[in-house]
Amino acid sequence: MKIEVMKNILNENEKIAEENRNFFKDKKVFVINLMGSPGSGKTSLLELTLKKLKNEIKMAVIEGDLFTAKDAERIERHNVPVIQINTAGGCHLDAAMIKRAAQNLNLDELDLVIVENVGNLVCPAEFDVGENVKAVVLSITEGDDKPLKYPLIFKESAVAILNKTDILKFTNFNLESAREDLTTIHPNIKIIETSCTNGEGLNEWCEWIKNNLMR
Amino acid sequence: MKIEVMKNILNENEKIAEENRNFFKDKKVFVINLMGSPGSGKTSLLELTLKKLKNEIKMAVIEGDLFTAKDAERIERHNVPVIQINTAGGCHLDAAMIKRAAQNLNLDELDLVIVENVGNLVCPAEFDVGENVKAVVLSITEGDDKPLKYPLIFKESAVAILNKTDILKFTNFNLESAREDLTTIHPNIKIIETSCTNGEGLNEWCEWIKNNLMR
Repeated sequence: MKIEVMKNILNENEKIAEENRNFFKDKKVFVINLMGSPGSGKTSLLELTLKKLKNEIKMAVIEGDLFTAKDAERIERHNVPVIQINTAGGCHLDAAMIKRAAQNLNLDELDLVIVENVGNLVCPAEFDVGENVKAVVLSITEGDDKPLKYPLIFKESAVAILNKTDILKFTNFNLESAREDLTTIHPNIKIIETSCTNGEGLNEWCEWIKNNLMR
Repeated sequence: MKIEVMKNILNENEKIAEENRNFFKDKKVFVINLMGSPGSGKTSLLELTLKKLKNEIKMAVIEGDLFTAKDAERIERHNVPVIQINTAGGCHLDAAMIKRAAQNLNLDELDLVIVENVGNLVCPAEFDVGENVKAVVLSITEGDDKPLKYPLIFKESAVAILNKTDILKFTNFNLESAREDLTTIHPNIKIIETSCTNGEGLNEWCEWIKNNLMR
């Protein structure tokens, strides 16, 4: 019964996600679903991305969080439109939430929407929200065993961002082995090493975004 | 419908959890449900705990993981009984999984079972597995905003372990504000600062365990 219900929920979600994707495509808006563990650095990466790109690209953010508006407040300071979604304890965003949120954005005037998902390396990977690409942030402090331990999210993501490289030398994270595991799971995954402290990799990430816009 | 099914699942889980708890109590086995984000350091903490306590306390480990046996292999090296549960992508352990796993342990000869949950700061908090206490590991590299952002898991946990203090100075984690938020969410929570690199706090954590055993 549990499995049957889960299937129905995922099918219904898939339907709305396709509608969202077509809707965003009509509006020529590129949508990134940004995922990762709590504390992997998603919001910090987002803030630096806004700083670097907001004068070139018309962008907005949809912020997913369990209860608070802490992340949305950080984004708002950058004078970029931000829509807060509170899942009230729910462990992921779904397509219906994004559909409602998108109604509050002026998509005709946007090139890019970044959706910051709930901090969770498991559940968000199962729920298509109608994005063009998923991107996953893995902080090197989480350990190089994570790609093999949580394969789905890395399989689903076009980009893997290995974040917090500034403190790499204080950890036992093996970059080479992480890269190997990532490409085993997902041969075409783009891997970008970043640090939101010293700015490493931010240009590469922003270039990647610019090359993928729809107009 | 989704909410109704979720309620039924949680009610059914609660029933089995109570059975587990009574069963463990009859056997005088203390059970800790160890939770935290991916990479917070649960397995490292567990390994040091085994090293420190295995000659004094008869203990076993139940390892929850999505697919791999990577953590169980790390535990096995310490010559402590370990049961692997693979959730096949599932984001948390539930009481039925623990019931099945416990059948493979000789509980008459044990004082302590530590259950390492799936790396996830959201879903495991909702599923009682029949433990005596929940404990949550938060690595300081995750950021001091996490208690307020993921309150349920801290509300449910008797102990919060603030891990990786050895690299505190390379982060902007504010220990005082994290402690304040933790006690706002859960006034009686025991907070222990640990480092699995330099051993800080390990004695305090092991003493706490010893003081809570049932025999």
